[in-house]
Amino acid sequence: MTDARTDNLLATIDPRSVAVLGASENPDKVGGRPIHYMLKFGYQGAIYPINPSRDLVQGLRSYKSLDDLPEVPELAVIVVSGDAALQAMKDCARIGVKAAIVIASGFGEVDEAGAAMQRQMRDIARAAGMRMVGPNSQGFANFASGAISSFSTMFIEYPPEDGPVAIISQSGALSAAVYGLLRRRGIGVRYMNATGNEADVNVPDVARLIVRDPDLKLVLLYLEHVADPGALAEAAAIARERGLPIVAIKSGRTASGQQMAASHTGSLANEDRVVDAFFRRHGIWRVNDPHAMARGAPMYLRDWHPEGNHLIAISNSGASCVLVADAADGAGLALAQPSEATRAAVRKVLPAFATSTNPIDLTGAVLSNNALLGNVLEALAGNPETDLVYIEIPVAGQGYDIDGFARVSADFAAKTGKPLAIGAWQDSVADPFRAVGLPVYDHADDALGALSQLAGHAALQRVAMPAWAPGAAVLLPTDAPGFLNEAQSLAVLQAAGLPVVAHRVCHTRDEAIAAFEAIGAPVVVKACSRDVPHKSEHGLVALKLASADAVAAAFDAQSATLARLGAVNEGVIVAAMRGGQRELMLGAHVDPVFGPVVVVGDGGKYVEALKDSAVLVPPFTEAEVEAALRALRIGPILDGVRGDPPVDLNAFARAAVALGRMIEANAERIASVDVNPVIAGAAGEGAVVVDGLVEVRAR
Amino acid sequence: MTDARTDNLLATIDPRSVAVLGASENPDKVGGRPIHYMLKFGYQGAIYPINPSRDLVQGLRSYKSLDDLPEVPELAVIVVSGDAALQAMKDCARIGVKAAIVIASGFGEVDEAGAAMQRQMRDIARAAGMRMVGPNSQGFANFASGAISSFSTMFIEYPPEDGPVAIISQSGALSAAVYGLLRRRGIGVRYMNATGNEADVNVPDVARLIVRDPDLKLVLLYLEHVADPGALAEAAAIARERGLPIVAIKSGRTASGQQMAASHTGSLANEDRVVDAFFRRHGIWRVNDPHAMARGAPMYLRDWHPEGNHLIAISNSGASCVLVADAADGAGLALAQPSEATRAAVRKVLPAFATSTNPIDLTGAVLSNNALLGNVLEALAGNPETDLVYIEIPVAGQGYDIDGFARVSADFAAKTGKPLAIGAWQDSVADPFRAVGLPVYDHADDALGALSQLAGHAALQRVAMPAWAPGAAVLLPTDAPGFLNEAQSLAVLQAAGLPVVAHRVCHTRDEAIAAFEAIGAPVVVKACSRDVPHKSEHGLVALKLASADAVAAAFDAQSATLARLGAVNEGVIVAAMRGGQRELMLGAHVDPVFGPVVVVGDGGKYVEALKDSAVLVPPFTEAEVEAALRALRIGPILDGVRGDPPVDLNAFARAAVALGRMIEANAERIASVDVNPVIAGAAGEGAVVVDGLVEVRAR
Repeated sequence: MTDARTDNLLATIDPRSVAVLGASENPDKVGGRPIHYMLKFGYQGAIYPINPSRDLVQGLRSYKSLDDLPEVPELAVIVVSGDAALQAMKDCARIGVKAAIVIASGFGEVDEAGAAMQRQMRDIARAAGMRMVGPNSQGFANFASGAISSFSTMFIEYPPEDGPVAIISQSGALSAAVYGLLRRRGIGVRYMNATGNEADVNVPDVARLIVRDPDLKLVLLYLEHVADPGALAEAAAIARERGLPIVAIKSGRTASGQQMAASHTGSLANEDRVVDAFFRRHGIWRVNDPHAMARGAPMYLRDWHPEGNHLIAISNSGASCVLVADAADGAGLALAQPSEATRAAVRKVLPAFATSTNPIDLTGAVLSNNALLGNVLEALAGNPETDLVYIEIPVAGQGYDIDGFARVSADFAAKTGKPLAIGAWQDSVADPFRAVGLPVYDHADDALGALSQLAGHAALQRVAMPAWAPGAAVLLPTDAPGFLNEAQSLAVLQAAGLPVVAHRVCHTRDEAIAAFEAIGAPVVVKACSRDVPHKSEHGLVALKLASADAVAAAFDAQSATLARLGAVNEGVIVAAMRGGQRELMLGAHVDPVFGPVVVVGDGGKYVEALKDSAVLVPPFTEAEVEAALRALRIGPILDGVRGDPPVDLNAFARAAVALGRMIEANAERIASVDVNPVIAGAAGEGAVVVDGLVEVRAR
Repeated sequence: MTDARTDNLLATIDPRSVAVLGASENPDKVGGRPIHYMLKFGYQGAIYPINPSRDLVQGLRSYKSLDDLPEVPELAVIVVSGDAALQAMKDCARIGVKAAIVIASGFGEVDEAGAAMQRQMRDIARAAGMRMVGPNSQGFANFASGAISSFSTMFIEYPPEDGPVAIISQSGALSAAVYGLLRRRGIGVRYMNATGNEADVNVPDVARLIVRDPDLKLVLLYLEHVADPGALAEAAAIARERGLPIVAIKSGRTASGQQMAASHTGSLANEDRVVDAFFRRHGIWRVNDPHAMARGAPMYLRDWHPEGNHLIAISNSGASCVLVADAADGAGLALAQPSEATRAAVRKVLPAFATSTNPIDLTGAVLSNNALLGNVLEALAGNPETDLVYIEIPVAGQGYDIDGFARVSADFAAKTGKPLAIGAWQDSVADPFRAVGLPVYDHADDALGALSQLAGHAALQRVAMPAWAPGAAVLLPTDAPGFLNEAQSLAVLQAAGLPVVAHRVCHTRDEAIAAFEAIGAPVVVKACSRDVPHKSEHGLVALKLASADAVAAAFDAQSATLARLGAVNEGVIVAAMRGGQRELMLGAHVDPVFGPVVVVGDGGKYVEALKDSAVLVPPFTEAEVEAALRALRIGPILDGVRGDPPVDLNAFARAAVALGRMIEANAERIASVDVNPVIAGAAGEGAVVVDGLVEVRAR
């Protein structure tokens, strides 16, 4: 990871010298702003304006060309456009510039000609080992060093302040919006980097580098397409190692969004639940929009590490207590059940008539005794059942000592280390709490959402990356791409260690009868032909056969049907007829971007229609499979209801892990696996694969 | 509705004269604020401070007692507490005051003694035909007349301005919070009324009166308990008649919330999905919190009446376009598919490389040509596919003519009458749009949520209250409360017009065999005993019997089992064995507050575990039943998938309506009905009730 390409990438983030090609005297021009900002925000390195027609640019000596510079600049910011930009790239490559940030637009985002020129620029960079950001990039900004190639005007409305947050975004507008939302909350930002068209450098590349900055406490990413999951996984691993949280927006969640993303960046769509699973696997917290990024940010900057999601809420309004109790559930928080000791302590403090429930209603009594809030917080301080605290003051005015409230709240947070969010919207109420550095929200959903995110992300980061032994290569009966027949598919699954039902492939009536004798009644008889994937729709499945005669008859009938359909006859399968508690499904495929993924869910005929399944990205544990199943809509019945025994989830989980290891080891050869149903028995009875379809991919 | 009680209630809202018992010279005291506010906000009626120890109160002549007043005041505001409050109520009743608003607290919300005194006060009022608000009420405020009994301090921080919105809330804090949130958005408020403990007057009472105010454009309600659905339904009917929208928070949506509400107001919990169904039935839009009330409010004040939920979005950021496309779905909006004509018009306006998708990406081109937004809006103006418009500007600065953007946007809204929301968070961007009176949001979810609410509420209000013929009284076999046996239950359902399976109740083996001959194979044989509601768990159900011998054997076995269980033998049912497309369920019960409701959903064994059902409040149409079924999780399979024919939803819907009419007509006698399964056949094949349980209620 400290190769030359990485080393050169460093020059985009922390350059010792910067040349601006297309430098402008006018600080309001795109070519003028970066120089203006570097001068204004204290960049200590050398700034080399390049402008053939001037001797001075914004008071700095200006040069006619790169060749006139006293040294080779580490970073070149390319503002000139079209052919000039292409020439600039050539010159940079020639003299050995480490990296170029191409601000100029009018390339891949415009038309095919632009795309072609963009590829040319990338090839020039790659050939020279130079890194290239953009084109169509808004530029990078580093407020620790003042190295700024960005032309965003947001720095004018919301002046920068170095801080523990990094923003890395494909979109310039998005990066500036998030920057502004954070600055408006008074949060300092160190990096604001926009990668634009990503001809060479993409968001994961930059993330992988920036997560090494020891001063960071939060990394925010905006992606419209995950181009390089490997790099993102590396970045996540480094960050997780350091306990540095990464929060990401991956837009294009919906069909419409993906369509839009495609037309915006021309990027392929990622399957959204695979993105979810991948982020979860790597400890990255996903949010949907800049608003959610901004609301969550303050929670990460206090070194709060909640161990659970149990909330205690306090308000001066009974109505707020009810509304917060309602909202907690939707936010994924559990209301803490205070211990009897805690209840007693609270009861001592609150007037007899105040409830000692959770949320805690301070009632109008707080008006006549402003010390109540502090006393209640004191009573809660030691409460081990509480992970998170929310104080909502929907209305206050005369008679309220808000400064006092803010003081005792800040003390509580400092003393206990428990995350504390405030709900208030009147400036007269919110400001004193902000002044003591507590996160203040004007909407309970935002406050609870932020607390829930902090708790959820902390839990996610505590999950270690599971280790698993690599699967073995399976022997495929053919190299031809396409579906294997059922017999072949079952053989592959059996070889991979999945619990396949006892069966035989029979080519004569006598073999079928012998199979029946060996397996024992009742049996299923199914014709086997790669030409007929959906057997039952052609009457090629005979169930519950209990006699040799019935088996023989079915064999004859199905052989005849295959002949009538003109489908290749690859034998007739005689299999044990297995019942069980629940039909589940197990699938796997190789995602074009993310690679092997496994799908587990409810099985049977309506899999597509009812869509009750979950995606897992390898490696995953049996426990994670069981948790995924319990989170399904059918989850409630899997542990046994209405007198049913619980379903043997563990046996199913073992099969899912075996399939995951197999698809991972054979991703080059196997495109997809569809196992439906897997009949799961009652706990301890195991699970059995009774049908399967394996798709071989073209070499 | 113009009886004396209503007439007197009017005095709480629009009194000609107001006496304040416990008047204070100090405008910061609870007893001083109402007088202070009435003087300050221009109340023209007579104000009578009552304070035995002063001659003047805030410059007004003060009186020793009610009896000293020159006239009988229409409204008495009671600030004095405890026994003095009780005495005040007696005096008011004696001299014929029309209504009293009891500000004093320390009653039902405190303890049983307080509750007792509260009941006493209510009885005094009722006996005299006087209306009573509170106790523990924050008071009422009418900013049209300046009649103010409220002691809220919110009027100081956010000065009132008369406007088209009414706030009626059980909670004082909540009413003030909503008032403040609206005023902060610059929205005028006419009424802010808090009903407190609701010993007599409750929120629906006040709503029923206030919806008659012709100047109102929006009524906002906060309820922790729907005490009087009848009054609320009347208020809703009047409002709907006038096209006046009612938006309500009903807190206590969740188990925790209901617990909290109970401890806050001591009120019973309402079953939440019944509340949902009731609100929907009466055209009331439900939101979850004050934030949602405030965000939706501006949409109602523009006389916008969208006919659908098809959105066109426009942004200067491609990333925003993607994020908005993602968010639209979650907000319940559909992205409009612009006609080819519209697309062409947009393409004419936008630079070749800009996409003519929806959302529409103005791209950086808007910077060099600020007229682009106006041109695009012009191109969209005539577009019939568009119901709603959203413009998001996540980032702007130098080079943006925001004032121009605001102007063309306002013109578009004025010219087309299409609801238009703006997404912007920089003050420099938001302010110009606010200045032209457009709703501005700093979060896309809020903007889209508000647009979706407006469209959804408009659609809800267009649904006429269905008329249906009242059901007939059914003859019950017993007056004893409890469950009828299956035979009796089926008889009741049959009488109610439900399609009950062909069956006979047999008491001898010969009757059973005769029934089998008459019905034809296959049949089901089930023992019938009110003592054994869950037959199958005792082996008292024999399926698919195809011969007289089998039926005879089953009859004998089940009779023996009943004897062994010591359960009363009420015969053995021989019923036709019916298959079908899908097992559904149909239920009904009489809600203690809302009365008869019907439940429709997926049927079978896992009804409780999988919870896939919907509640309908009578009267409802067959079409509404079918829509409710299609909205279930199993909805996708009901119209036929994987080669299945569609399910006969219409036959099921007829049964549901029949059950609804029956439970409505027999609510006095029938507590609940549980029909599971109803076996629905393929379209045209009908649906058949194969099992049912009717619960008779105590007279």
